[in-house]
Amino acid sequence: MKFKAEIDIMPLKALLDPQGKAVTQSMKNLHLSEITNVRIGKHISLDIEAPDKKTAESKVDEACRKLLANQIMESYEFELLEM
Amino acid sequence: MKFKAEIDIMPLKALLDPQGKAVTQSMKNLHLSEITNVRIGKHISLDIEAPDKKTAESKVDEACRKLLANQIMESYEFELLEM
Repeated sequence: MKFKAEIDIMPLKALLDPQGKAVTQSMKNLHLSEITNVRIGKHISLDIEAPDKKTAESKVDEACRKLLANQIMESYEFELLEM
Repeated sequence: MKFKAEIDIMPLKALLDPQGKAVTQSMKNLHLSEITNVRIGKHISLDIEAPDKKTAESKVDEACRKLLANQIMESYEFELLEM
């Protein structure tokens, strides 16, 4: 079975997000001051071949832990869609 | 009303995504060769204050077009959740 994983990797809430802060400030300059609390992370999509959804989940989780996310600074979540 | 917007900004499908290609290759080295077609973009979350959902949508769309996404190279989509 083939699945598509959609992964969001975001800076931990406890940490400063300087890029997000800068963008929040830029919103003001664009007269979009109703926009606040911008946080910027990564979105990763990938395809995975696995015998069942549970296996696919554990493989994607492994990929996040080993390569995609830095768990000291980031948290991740993902969802799997059957293709 | 206060809304949270979750925005995904991805490289256009027609374009090469060298970062994604490099990560796809790294998956092989991690014995995760069942993972293919990795594409890497940005995930942005923000809060927005607006009188109704339609206004919030048009403001977030404006922010994406004017600041967050480079539409020559990227496509964006978002969803709004009432807080």
